[in-house]
Amino acid sequence: MNVPAQSDPGASSFDSLWTSLLPIGRNGATGGYRRFAWQDADMQCREWFRGQAESRGLDVERDRNGNLWAWWGSPGPGAIVTGSHLDSVPDGGAYDGPLGIVSAFAAIDLLRLRGVRPSRPIAVVAFSDEEGARFGVACIGSRLMTGELGRERALALRDDDGLTLAETLTKAGVDHGALGRDDESLARIGTFVELHVEQGRGLVDLDRSVGVATSIWPHGRWRFDFTGEANHAGTTLPQDRRDPMQAFAGTVLAARTAAASRDARATFGRVLIDPNGTNAIPSAVTGWLDARARDEATLDDLVADIGAAATASGEADRVGVAVTSESYTPVTTFDPALRDGIATLLDRAPLLPTAAGHDAGVLATAGVPTAMLFVRNPTGVSHSPEEHAEDVDCLAGTDALASVLADLAC
Amino acid sequence: MNVPAQSDPGASSFDSLWTSLLPIGRNGATGGYRRFAWQDADMQCREWFRGQAESRGLDVERDRNGNLWAWWGSPGPGAIVTGSHLDSVPDGGAYDGPLGIVSAFAAIDLLRLRGVRPSRPIAVVAFSDEEGARFGVACIGSRLMTGELGRERALALRDDDGLTLAETLTKAGVDHGALGRDDESLARIGTFVELHVEQGRGLVDLDRSVGVATSIWPHGRWRFDFTGEANHAGTTLPQDRRDPMQAFAGTVLAARTAAASRDARATFGRVLIDPNGTNAIPSAVTGWLDARARDEATLDDLVADIGAAATASGEADRVGVAVTSESYTPVTTFDPALRDGIATLLDRAPLLPTAAGHDAGVLATAGVPTAMLFVRNPTGVSHSPEEHAEDVDCLAGTDALASVLADLAC
Repeated sequence: MNVPAQSDPGASSFDSLWTSLLPIGRNGATGGYRRFAWQDADMQCREWFRGQAESRGLDVERDRNGNLWAWWGSPGPGAIVTGSHLDSVPDGGAYDGPLGIVSAFAAIDLLRLRGVRPSRPIAVVAFSDEEGARFGVACIGSRLMTGELGRERALALRDDDGLTLAETLTKAGVDHGALGRDDESLARIGTFVELHVEQGRGLVDLDRSVGVATSIWPHGRWRFDFTGEANHAGTTLPQDRRDPMQAFAGTVLAARTAAASRDARATFGRVLIDPNGTNAIPSAVTGWLDARARDEATLDDLVADIGAAATASGEADRVGVAVTSESYTPVTTFDPALRDGIATLLDRAPLLPTAAGHDAGVLATAGVPTAMLFVRNPTGVSHSPEEHAEDVDCLAGTDALASVLADLAC
Repeated sequence: MNVPAQSDPGASSFDSLWTSLLPIGRNGATGGYRRFAWQDADMQCREWFRGQAESRGLDVERDRNGNLWAWWGSPGPGAIVTGSHLDSVPDGGAYDGPLGIVSAFAAIDLLRLRGVRPSRPIAVVAFSDEEGARFGVACIGSRLMTGELGRERALALRDDDGLTLAETLTKAGVDHGALGRDDESLARIGTFVELHVEQGRGLVDLDRSVGVATSIWPHGRWRFDFTGEANHAGTTLPQDRRDPMQAFAGTVLAARTAAASRDARATFGRVLIDPNGTNAIPSAVTGWLDARARDEATLDDLVADIGAAATASGEADRVGVAVTSESYTPVTTFDPALRDGIATLLDRAPLLPTAAGHDAGVLATAGVPTAMLFVRNPTGVSHSPEEHAEDVDCLAGTDALASVLADLAC
């Protein structure tokens, strides 16, 4: 951002927040971010959060599940809470998550500049491990808080190095004795509003900077294990092969067809191959399916179709196929009255559904009055170093968030 | 092996060699071997080689390219050399490589027991990094010796951790200043005979313990780079996707069809995915094709067909495709007179071609009179923890090798 501080204090505040966070966890080769829960970059982001909060005189606390809170006013019931997450997917963009936290601090700066005195407490929250890049489960921090993710299951989650979440938290100096449903933190949230970069081109098509979410598509993750027989790549006859890569490939192509015919989404973005040697037929291929659709019946039908294609491919090649559901999130509808009130406040901001999961969805599912604001993404690209939002749209988002906070908290 | 030492000294010698090597580099979970060049397990195998040689009074040397030699008699021209390799593919079997070295030492024990006094020197050799599991190029030790692999290219090879072969050798305490074509070592080899477990079921079908190789199919490795666009797995519309996993999957299926129609072999056993996250469309998928056929025209045609299928898949998805040849070995025909002489000596042992590459092929290509013996593999499975050979067949192989060495060296 190159807006002189004198001309627009809101822009200056956003700019200073944004540029101070930008270098943390950025990979020089790809330009993407690798901020994985409880690793160095994530710990630096947490330090950044603490520093920004303290420089504003906001009280900082880490709750029992590792989420960070910064309080303007005394923590207590009826608080207006805003925020998002600081972690990233592997080589993710700069905006997904951080934009919501930077905008939250910048909105507080704007409210103070405007002399707003909220009658309810306002808090900025940074939820832990939203992307699930490290332990395979998304929204760990918010799901632990609402109890959707149980304490025992969470502590036993393992990263790709075999480290459990329990071991990880101990290493990071976090006592995990009190991990789990946190009624005290939940009870304080009167309303939660998450600002997020849009991850599609809905606002581009509508020619608007800011939109309001209607719902989150149902979505989930399924693990597909294809088990064949390791053998020599040169000497094994075609008819003797039990090559799980073939069954995997057939399933990948079937997933595309199944998704396209339903205007749904099906992606195999993560694959592990054993032993992954050039001159060996693999013994096993494991692929993770990320699937989403506009309603649960369509999603279930989509996954059943892909599972059937995997089974058929496996039978043709004498390859074992096992499909395991690793997570499933039903459709989430945000509070209609809150949503419509915000849209009216923001000059009839457009209403949009999304196929992406968020901490806001977890809170809405738990019964918290919740809303989301989206900021225009010129290409729609996300989960990529190419993810972008224009400065002017980010400032419009901050201004919109400040208006919403003032409206709710005063 | 459970043969009492008193009843068969040959069996006892083989058994003691075999069982002492067996634990090194074995993975407890898979039962497979992970003996990768210059890593701990490989270094322990080298120590084992040195110990076995010294306990037999054989002089040990490491040549300029890291290959190990054990000499019965003074090193010099006209030597009869036998051996194989000690490294493995990821989770490989116990026999591929080590059987040739164990049989070589056991054959020397047999010759001595029988009072044979060779008139030429006999050497056992363990070639470095035959499988190419670490640096992606097979037969590095023998190819450096013959000059087929150039010094500069070899030193710049990188493993998956980004370490070069040059750095690896320095770390292992090996001076790589003299790496490269080694005329002195080559000139000493009068004849090379490699014993190897069969990697197919040719000998099972022929009901024989031991066979003799006729030729090695032409074969090679090609890297297929599919370059798409990283994006959000949930929010990216089907028509906006540039998903390289789709083009890769289409290519994997095309490879099977192309190989089957030619009775050839095409395998994608190794794949790297970037960034390999569940909720991200990958930016890039790289797959390595291992392809082999009975003659070079068929092989070239096969690879061209698979390349064309990859290009077509990539165009359909707006995914970039680049195919790079990483290695290519023309057909290798073993010395016909030597081969026929050995077959006659071994009670008309059957003659078999193979689709697997070997150090023996590298030496034959360089003009060294070379032969190979195969030992029956009951299932044909290789490059797998399931790889096996029966004790009685291993002893028959050792006995056959001893006869061949005696015939050539006396």
